[in-house]
Amino acid sequence: MAESEAVAPRRRVGRRSGDSETREEILTAARALFAELGYDGASVRAIAARAAVDPALIRHYFGDKQALFATAMAERSAIGPRLGEAFAGPPDQLASRLADAYLRLWEDADTRPILMALARSAMTSREASRLMRDTLTTRIRDVGPMPVIGEPAARGLVAAGAQLFGIAVARHVLEMPGLAELTHDELVELVTPTVQHHLDGPGH
Amino acid sequence: MAESEAVAPRRRVGRRSGDSETREEILTAARALFAELGYDGASVRAIAARAAVDPALIRHYFGDKQALFATAMAERSAIGPRLGEAFAGPPDQLASRLADAYLRLWEDADTRPILMALARSAMTSREASRLMRDTLTTRIRDVGPMPVIGEPAARGLVAAGAQLFGIAVARHVLEMPGLAELTHDELVELVTPTVQHHLDGPGH
Repeated sequence: MAESEAVAPRRRVGRRSGDSETREEILTAARALFAELGYDGASVRAIAARAAVDPALIRHYFGDKQALFATAMAERSAIGPRLGEAFAGPPDQLASRLADAYLRLWEDADTRPILMALARSAMTSREASRLMRDTLTTRIRDVGPMPVIGEPAARGLVAAGAQLFGIAVARHVLEMPGLAELTHDELVELVTPTVQHHLDGPGH
Repeated sequence: MAESEAVAPRRRVGRRSGDSETREEILTAARALFAELGYDGASVRAIAARAAVDPALIRHYFGDKQALFATAMAERSAIGPRLGEAFAGPPDQLASRLADAYLRLWEDADTRPILMALARSAMTSREASRLMRDTLTTRIRDVGPMPVIGEPAARGLVAAGAQLFGIAVARHVLEMPGLAELTHDELVELVTPTVQHHLDGPGH
């Protein structure tokens, strides 16, 4: 009795104290099973079993299976580092660097499917959209000396990001004439002034 | 024999000559069955049977079931007329009218679910995204004395629309801090200058 109790707690159903550790264990299990069995073959149940957690915990941390897949891929991808790099440099060229870095990730065959999967999950799952919001809010805060998301000073950054997202979806998902046929550089040139306008904020 | 041939052709599987008539018959059947049985209860197969067409034709015209639902609802909604009205009036206030009309459709409890369903379908179904592109391209052309989508002069309108879409998704789907807590009028004020910049085109 005492022995089983000593073993059970770490694997108990529900939230554990080591939140980020559990999250990492789920991601490690997901990467292993997606690699072994492919997207369709790896079930959330099997991933939960491999990570020794309740499947409900996967839903809690990641939303749906597509979002788990996208997160597992995104965290080993160039997405975070490249966006992070874009924030470094002269502030008056931040818009151009951000537009270039973000839209280039959509051009890149390695990262486009991940961004697409993240966008699809956020559009179709409430859990996934909540997690996307939390990630964007926290990550952007981690990037460097940026205004905290939620404070008025960060509104321009959020508006700029929303605009870039809309442009990327119109180009790559809807393939809208007018945007789809531009080169990457032309597209960056087209959107940079309005991104800069949002970053500068009202009154500029 | 001659008699059955005289009856069969109108209901033949595949594309018929009266494309728009067939499309209307499917939409009428869809509206009736969605009303009778609800979204989950009305299958694409049942809608096809009611319209006396092959289910593959529904896929061809509308993409997935969600897109069929959204289209059936959208065509009886205020979406088209309100966007159409926004194009009438002084050109130098077009950005403000467009931003107001489009973003107000996302605030409206009658039209938001339709816009959400259309966006979700376009993000997850290739057919639905193709149809969305075709609809946007044709409809905007029908609206009035606007540049034809696909010509360079229309690029600004497409970019402006993409930006408004991104802002709406960030506010209503991701509920991003910075955009979610603004009033509708504040949001319109925030985005109008950049929408106007896109509509004015390069060099302004």
